Amino acid sequence: MDILEAISDHRSVRKFKTDPVAEDMLTEVLEAGIRASSYGNMNSYSLVVSRDQETRERLFLPLKQQQMVRDAPVQVTFCSDFRRMRKWLAQNDAPDNFGDFFAFMIGAIDAVLVSQNVALAAEAKGLGICYIGATLGNAHLVGEVLELPAGVVPVTGFSLGWPDEEPQRRDRLPFSGLVHYERYHDHTAEEIEEIYRERNKVGWDRYMANARLRQMIEESDVENLAQVYTRLKYTPEAHERHSASLLAYLRKQGFMS
Amino acid sequence: MDILEAISDHRSVRKFKTDPVAEDMLTEVLEAGIRASSYGNMNSYSLVVSRDQETRERLFLPLKQQQMVRDAPVQVTFCSDFRRMRKWLAQNDAPDNFGDFFAFMIGAIDAVLVSQNVALAAEAKGLGICYIGATLGNAHLVGEVLELPAGVVPVTGFSLGWPDEEPQRRDRLPFSGLVHYERYHDHTAEEIEEIYRERNKVGWDRYMANARLRQMIEESDVENLAQVYTRLKYTPEAHERHSASLLAYLRKQGFMS
Repeated sequence: MDILEAISDHRSVRKFKTDPVAEDMLTEVLEAGIRASSYGNMNSYSLVVSRDQETRERLFLPLKQQQMVRDAPVQVTFCSDFRRMRKWLAQNDAPDNFGDFFAFMIGAIDAVLVSQNVALAAEAKGLGICYIGATLGNAHLVGEVLELPAGVVPVTGFSLGWPDEEPQRRDRLPFSGLVHYERYHDHTAEEIEEIYRERNKVGWDRYMANARLRQMIEESDVENLAQVYTRLKYTPEAHERHSASLLAYLRKQGFMS
Repeated sequence: MDILEAISDHRSVRKFKTDPVAEDMLTEVLEAGIRASSYGNMNSYSLVVSRDQETRERLFLPLKQQQMVRDAPVQVTFCSDFRRMRKWLAQNDAPDNFGDFFAFMIGAIDAVLVSQNVALAAEAKGLGICYIGATLGNAHLVGEVLELPAGVVPVTGFSLGWPDEEPQRRDRLPFSGLVHYERYHDHTAEEIEEIYRERNKVGWDRYMANARLRQMIEESDVENLAQVYTRLKYTPEAHERHSASLLAYLRKQGFMS
């Protein structure tokens, strides 16, 4: 398949068969990941590949009880990792750098680049993936299950396996609302309305088509999609909690010196 | 070309022809980007595409005076962006969330996923790219040139254009040093030595083959590759400066409420 076609054909899969992914296919897909660009070619990331049912059961709660974590045969966690590098520095009488926030970010970007390579490679094999944002939101809990030592912080991750559904391609905000030329164009109220016009309808319909979300919406006095986002889904309180726990975890893991 | 082959064939291009990239090809490549997975499908990122010579000249200093910023016809900057979303929320009487660190990270991850899609789509067209880490290291200066308002922070970026060199594929740390199964394996000193064995040689030779770096190494008492990294390239002082300026910029741009 053409690469551009493959990229634009992406859809997240949330329902998986429990069939395993063959060892050699998994390795091939992961190996595509590590060819991604890497800051200073330091490769300051790690992948943790969890296949045991027991490990995935332990990840189920931190990953917000999403059934795919139990069903999909593989959970991959992409971590910012300067632990390996710092050991190498120490063993070679070099200054033990990279205990700072910028280092965390370098490793995080490296990890995300790798993750997208792995995602596309997996999809090219007919496998499905679904990124799980809670990997970062509950990084400290994920880190506990995966026994991540200081210098390592999970950034993103996904379930990986054979799709048991054929979801439609999701909508995206229009290109013209996402791409700026030369300098940033600060949208007017009218432009914002135009950018979100389609989304307001498609997004609302999508939530109302889901029994649990429909009930939540009907039991609240939420009136539109924007309110679904910050009154039901991503409340300020939850975000403050995630921010605080993530910053505390960065300190604990040695990235805030 | 097979997707896995394309992914593993990646090499960063640092020398570009000044020939322009045709408008429709550029659009096609950028459109592949916005199909990437996105946290809550919020698409909380923006791309800034700089083609004017004048803009690229102004980015030259913040992007560490790398000649490719001047030569390559396109510079793409991928930003974490909750400004558009927050305007939409305000216009729809929804709580104005996302002024926090976790929001910045969500947008940053979205932006990096998009960047890797664009990178692979570009390479499939025969174009070349080179990620520029200084986009984040000097985010505040890049933001000034691109006139990024509050709610927007550059995370990564690359030069894009027609290659004027055919670089070799770079080495990577061995797969076994980067991938862990089930839980994190904390490497022993012997394992670290093994993981970096090849790199110690290849990396050193690479620096010594570059006239400017060779001179820097010879004028110092640096003895090995690890010391090149933290005594010459990524000093603790520079990292502390980048961390401090990045955290200050996150506060300024409204991501640390």
